[in-house]
Amino acid sequence: MVSGMKQAVEMFKELDQRISHYTDISSLLAWDANTNAPKKGVPMFSKAKGTLSAEIFKLSTSNEMGQLLDALTSAEGDGQLDEVTRAAVRERKRDYDKFKRVPVELYQELVILTSNANTVWVEAKQTNNFALYEPTLSKIVELQKKLIECFGYEGHPYDALLDQYEPGLTVEKLDPLFTNLRDQTARLLQRLRSSSDQPSNSFLFEEYGVEKQKEFNRALLPQLGFDMDAGHMGISEHPFASSINTGDVRLTTRYKKNDLRSAIFGTVHECGHALYEQGINPDFEETAIRRGASFGIHESQSRFLENIVGRSLEFWTYFYGDLKQHFPQLEKVSLENFHRGINTVEPSLIRVEADEVTYNLHIMVRYEIEKGLISGELEVKDLPRIWNEKMEEYLGIVPPTDTLGVLQDVHWSFGGFGYFPSYSLGNLYAAQILNTIEKELPNFYQFIANGEFMVIRNWLKDKIHQYGSLYTPNELIVKITGEELNEQYLVDYLEHKYSQIYRL
Amino acid sequence: MVSGMKQAVEMFKELDQRISHYTDISSLLAWDANTNAPKKGVPMFSKAKGTLSAEIFKLSTSNEMGQLLDALTSAEGDGQLDEVTRAAVRERKRDYDKFKRVPVELYQELVILTSNANTVWVEAKQTNNFALYEPTLSKIVELQKKLIECFGYEGHPYDALLDQYEPGLTVEKLDPLFTNLRDQTARLLQRLRSSSDQPSNSFLFEEYGVEKQKEFNRALLPQLGFDMDAGHMGISEHPFASSINTGDVRLTTRYKKNDLRSAIFGTVHECGHALYEQGINPDFEETAIRRGASFGIHESQSRFLENIVGRSLEFWTYFYGDLKQHFPQLEKVSLENFHRGINTVEPSLIRVEADEVTYNLHIMVRYEIEKGLISGELEVKDLPRIWNEKMEEYLGIVPPTDTLGVLQDVHWSFGGFGYFPSYSLGNLYAAQILNTIEKELPNFYQFIANGEFMVIRNWLKDKIHQYGSLYTPNELIVKITGEELNEQYLVDYLEHKYSQIYRL
Repeated sequence: MVSGMKQAVEMFKELDQRISHYTDISSLLAWDANTNAPKKGVPMFSKAKGTLSAEIFKLSTSNEMGQLLDALTSAEGDGQLDEVTRAAVRERKRDYDKFKRVPVELYQELVILTSNANTVWVEAKQTNNFALYEPTLSKIVELQKKLIECFGYEGHPYDALLDQYEPGLTVEKLDPLFTNLRDQTARLLQRLRSSSDQPSNSFLFEEYGVEKQKEFNRALLPQLGFDMDAGHMGISEHPFASSINTGDVRLTTRYKKNDLRSAIFGTVHECGHALYEQGINPDFEETAIRRGASFGIHESQSRFLENIVGRSLEFWTYFYGDLKQHFPQLEKVSLENFHRGINTVEPSLIRVEADEVTYNLHIMVRYEIEKGLISGELEVKDLPRIWNEKMEEYLGIVPPTDTLGVLQDVHWSFGGFGYFPSYSLGNLYAAQILNTIEKELPNFYQFIANGEFMVIRNWLKDKIHQYGSLYTPNELIVKITGEELNEQYLVDYLEHKYSQIYRL
Repeated sequence: MVSGMKQAVEMFKELDQRISHYTDISSLLAWDANTNAPKKGVPMFSKAKGTLSAEIFKLSTSNEMGQLLDALTSAEGDGQLDEVTRAAVRERKRDYDKFKRVPVELYQELVILTSNANTVWVEAKQTNNFALYEPTLSKIVELQKKLIECFGYEGHPYDALLDQYEPGLTVEKLDPLFTNLRDQTARLLQRLRSSSDQPSNSFLFEEYGVEKQKEFNRALLPQLGFDMDAGHMGISEHPFASSINTGDVRLTTRYKKNDLRSAIFGTVHECGHALYEQGINPDFEETAIRRGASFGIHESQSRFLENIVGRSLEFWTYFYGDLKQHFPQLEKVSLENFHRGINTVEPSLIRVEADEVTYNLHIMVRYEIEKGLISGELEVKDLPRIWNEKMEEYLGIVPPTDTLGVLQDVHWSFGGFGYFPSYSLGNLYAAQILNTIEKELPNFYQFIANGEFMVIRNWLKDKIHQYGSLYTPNELIVKITGEELNEQYLVDYLEHKYSQIYRL
């Protein structure tokens, strides 16, 4: 029996490796679709991608996989496993349990649809034409509902989607958390708005040549610890990072000639994701655990780098001289005013460019809409109206166009319902991690001011990145910080930082 | 039985489609590996590509495929097939018969090895270090020999490789053809060298800014009929074209600031390949015949565009004004002298930049070396010496470095032994096609001078491109020109063109 079990372990590893290889290829295809792919090739190539995804799906839910998982999660089997294989078994079992009831045809239909949808979304966004996007989005929602019925759920049907990105998370847990965060945010926002010393950020929206921006942004990456031999940066409509393997991690940003923040914070944000992927233990390659612990944990790394590091005074103490060399028009702006400018709190239209305080309100708009679409309370055709109503309710402003409103995000086009809450979870995790790093590296902000980003990157790699998904998100946050997720850290961080900036 | 046969047709189409999808993905991976892929990701991603290639291999040589091919090539089965399916069956049967005896492990080993080899070759070439490349190349040759033993052959073992690129071609047929071509070339070359009116081309090697070159080259593509919504152009060490599907055809070129020809003729050459792929009947997508008829026929399209069109006086009658606007230093060079300059015949080191007359001599160097490596008469370690000896014998010059000699071509790194003769076959086919097009479009050169490239592109699409590999190369050349391949057309074309240019 022992040799039979050894064989099962070998067979599992081979199957895990094969699925991992196909997943790596899928990541590359996703990168390509969003950066290089010419328009006319998309419909046909979507079919090819559908075939590959269907194969991943079939392997992940095959009888062979089921039998191997049964054997390896038995008392006898589990005893044979090393730590890495045990975690890979856990991850494959999550997928298996979720997807084994989903018909392959449904899965393939969703893959093809969402693969084609990107082009439709880009065009709808570019031409401010929600009607163009509506039939595709309606179909995506319809298939998401079918998927949920296959997944199964106990409370709210949206739970089935949340669980994909943050295992164990439910509407029941999330609703009060978000309500609490919203209350705190509203209170802070009111105080900041009433300050008599409002920062100015108009200088950020002067003309900044795109070529110079590219130069500055590309130079940022290696300084933050990104290994330029193990990835590169492209351009896309919506910034993203895509990990092919630990030696090939790609990210994108976007350039706007009248907004200096857009590219820089896009770059720093995606760099946070990319450092995570580059930092995963290479021994985990070709297994299910060569990926982040969860989307929330992943997002904590991007938002840690973007906001806590990238929007700190110390970050710009180090980089501002270089930035001014690229853009001499900044000579008239002091470092302090630059720092205050990039931390201006202001209800605004675009999530990815929102400040730290109002950001979570943008997430709530999307969270509520997604819940409504999935429960059937909302219909796709009404989204432009609903979106604008919620923006007015939560942020006090109404988008003048759908391009600046409901069409702004890529996520729905790839079927990423349930993803948005990860961003706010990322903020929560990040603030909690900051609390720990400041204890363990008392000179944290001094390292930033000195440009010694490798010290910080190495700490993150040591505590978080290297582990991939060896641990569950909850295990990991406890391991790092000594306690479970606690929203007080984010509230305190925002209070402290913005009281200073607004001189309250 | 009829319904059983219908089912077999459906099963074959499904299998053909699946293999085609994976092949499309492989094409994208090849494009990426040669343009975007960061160095450190290559070894791991090569394994992933190996898994995909092994799957293609398994499907192509599966018992299911064998049984379906048996059924569909039976008298009864063949009667059920439409023209497209019959051709797809023919193509899949070629692969099946060739590869069914190749162990999957051997195939996968070769794929992984050649996938990694590109990076090694690039570095060896950049650092003029053949020793770095030698172990990899030796291993590739060793595996090619094993492959040949599996394929089987009747005459020379190299026949098994030739047949992959040009079905039916053998050393026995090719040796006298190349000998004849060499004799004719040598005679013409001697006459040209003895002309008292030698053209000058030194102006081509002044400094030409790369940004301006990029601008000119990118603008060329749509004017030649390339659909910019169905592909794009990148940069790579060695120019190539890669077809994902008929709506996504990508090509590369390379830029040298002291050689105006390099990028332009790289672009035009690869554009010839790309027009072929964009022009294939879209109904052939997802089948084995959505590809060129053979490598020789494919090469005929690139060399037709590069040499017959792109190096004609009429081509530059149309484009020279624009080129001079990009590079005012050309004001001092008349159109006639420019045309003579780009058609200078001169023994030179680099195949891809060789003139039309000496080009085939470069092919012969490679052809002889490949035959010798495969038969065991030559060893990889001796290649730098052998290469230089043959260059001296055939072209009268010795490369000063291996970078400019044995390391110049990408082909061996991807295992493309047997490929090089396709280039000379391309020249032969192209000249024969020219003879026909001049009869059918008597204003052929006038269309070029007027910039009416769509007329020419449409003729090529109508006669050649649309058919993909519906016909065998021999069927196709007979269909286009009314006769089988005849080398006299190339000899006459070269004699005629260069007698004029050298004022003999």
